[in-house]
Amino acid sequence: MNSRIKIGIVGYGNLGKGVEKSLQQNPDMELKAIFSRRSPDYFSTTSNILSMEEIPNFKDKIDVMILCGGSAKDLPVQSLEIAQYFSTVDSFDTHAEIPQYFEAVNKIATQNKNLSLISTGWDPGLFSIIRVLGESILPKGKTYTFWGEGLSQGHSDAVRQIPGVKLAAQYTLPNQQALREAKLKNQPDLDIPSMHNRKVYVVLKENFCSKEIEKAIKTMPHYFEPYHTEVFFIEEEEFLKNHQNMPHGGQVIRTGFSQENHFQRMEFLLQLENNPAFTSSVLVAFARAVFRMNQENKIGAISVFDVPLGLLSPRSAEDLRKTFL
Amino acid sequence: MNSRIKIGIVGYGNLGKGVEKSLQQNPDMELKAIFSRRSPDYFSTTSNILSMEEIPNFKDKIDVMILCGGSAKDLPVQSLEIAQYFSTVDSFDTHAEIPQYFEAVNKIATQNKNLSLISTGWDPGLFSIIRVLGESILPKGKTYTFWGEGLSQGHSDAVRQIPGVKLAAQYTLPNQQALREAKLKNQPDLDIPSMHNRKVYVVLKENFCSKEIEKAIKTMPHYFEPYHTEVFFIEEEEFLKNHQNMPHGGQVIRTGFSQENHFQRMEFLLQLENNPAFTSSVLVAFARAVFRMNQENKIGAISVFDVPLGLLSPRSAEDLRKTFL
Repeated sequence: MNSRIKIGIVGYGNLGKGVEKSLQQNPDMELKAIFSRRSPDYFSTTSNILSMEEIPNFKDKIDVMILCGGSAKDLPVQSLEIAQYFSTVDSFDTHAEIPQYFEAVNKIATQNKNLSLISTGWDPGLFSIIRVLGESILPKGKTYTFWGEGLSQGHSDAVRQIPGVKLAAQYTLPNQQALREAKLKNQPDLDIPSMHNRKVYVVLKENFCSKEIEKAIKTMPHYFEPYHTEVFFIEEEEFLKNHQNMPHGGQVIRTGFSQENHFQRMEFLLQLENNPAFTSSVLVAFARAVFRMNQENKIGAISVFDVPLGLLSPRSAEDLRKTFL
Repeated sequence: MNSRIKIGIVGYGNLGKGVEKSLQQNPDMELKAIFSRRSPDYFSTTSNILSMEEIPNFKDKIDVMILCGGSAKDLPVQSLEIAQYFSTVDSFDTHAEIPQYFEAVNKIATQNKNLSLISTGWDPGLFSIIRVLGESILPKGKTYTFWGEGLSQGHSDAVRQIPGVKLAAQYTLPNQQALREAKLKNQPDLDIPSMHNRKVYVVLKENFCSKEIEKAIKTMPHYFEPYHTEVFFIEEEEFLKNHQNMPHGGQVIRTGFSQENHFQRMEFLLQLENNPAFTSSVLVAFARAVFRMNQENKIGAISVFDVPLGLLSPRSAEDLRKTFL
């Protein structure tokens, strides 16, 4: 008898690899196949790597597909395609497009009696849940989100576009002063640039001038211009040794007043040595919930707000009440 | 047109009074009546205070009853009585008895097509949710719960039993050393006494000896004996000025390793100026969810693990996705 939840992975970058590894920590689930655009020969894994064209052939052989492509180009296309055949979980994070993305996925998933959980991970995902919890319990209050200390892929990419930059890593850090203030009773107004600082580590190409590149970084609109930014020029050797990891994290703080003016504070914090490894663990736990909800005839698109969190655990409801209440 | 959720409160101590006030911050809900064993003349409130015998007369006039009695004597009797007529929310916190309490409430609620959420608040409640989240996402890990700094009613009561004690307030504090260690990679084994210290403020009756009472406190089995305890003898005036509040809080820490040995940490922290005011806000938000779930024909007993957290918010699912994802 095999009652394990059968999982497929679509996309085999950092996130897909993370899901592959996370599944090994979850014995009630099994990986049936990984679907990638690249040739199987390209990868050093014993998992079953197949081309994207094979996806429809796995209908009825896979319970939940975990979509590990990017939000910009992959997910808007892949979700709609794959939700025809399978229940899905994804980490779509283009905030402004979430409403229309939800509607499009909802339509396809509903037609095909599948269940699609969109936009999960830690932000969007766990942080979103905490924001809702905070506002619901302390309606008269204020919510602050700080990100970091962590490597920002988008900002590192932006720095790498500057001519003369060979390698770059950009870290976002909470501004410690703002972090202290966000916890106080006076509930200050803080904007994202005043809440965060940036540190950039750059390896220069030969014959480029650090002064000019530092200026180009610090004056880059939106990305760096409104932030307190420090730039460090380092040797390639040091870069390869110290800046190849993908740490991240952050915190959500809700402060509010109960009637009678009692000040109450709620905080949720993540400190992650490896961002994609953690995000993929979140996707895997939510895939378990999606499987169970679909078994109970739930169909269409949903967000993390629709998932009873006990369904993330392999334990029974009875065991959860006994062990964790 | 009145589409507000109609709430009743059973029990009018600190928690019931907190619920009464919290409802004022939630314009989609309205308080229909408070049921108390004491005579209405006893209270200075404009709310509708009635005797417990009136409860059955409110069937169909109240959507959700929030049960604010104690876990030791009130809830085991009241829940079963009231779940015949109404959906309920309670904060039952006698951990060892939760399984049988759940079964008993489940039977009555199911028979009467009502929905009863048991054991909510912040612990059990929010902390329980975070523990499940932590284990589900980081299955290879360890969970630590610290309580405090906060006033413990049970420990204060125990001290007041000692002959010669006129007034007493007992504060539980996280041991700062243990708190630091709990966040580290080596994941130390910590037991509850090593994780917490206790501070006791005592006002003596005349002609009693502080030395003997200090000894009686520090050697009290279970309550104080295994803990690092400090005892302070103070004047009544100081006690009344500084020890009449009910602050509390605590934190849940989950540390774990992703495959490839990446160390990941999750923390949830509460710092509350007033414990019953916060707990009652949690009960009120969950009452909203219970109302909605019962409208969707969910019946029987449930725990916080069964509640999609989006239902705690007065906002629509669409609005939540747009605003908080």
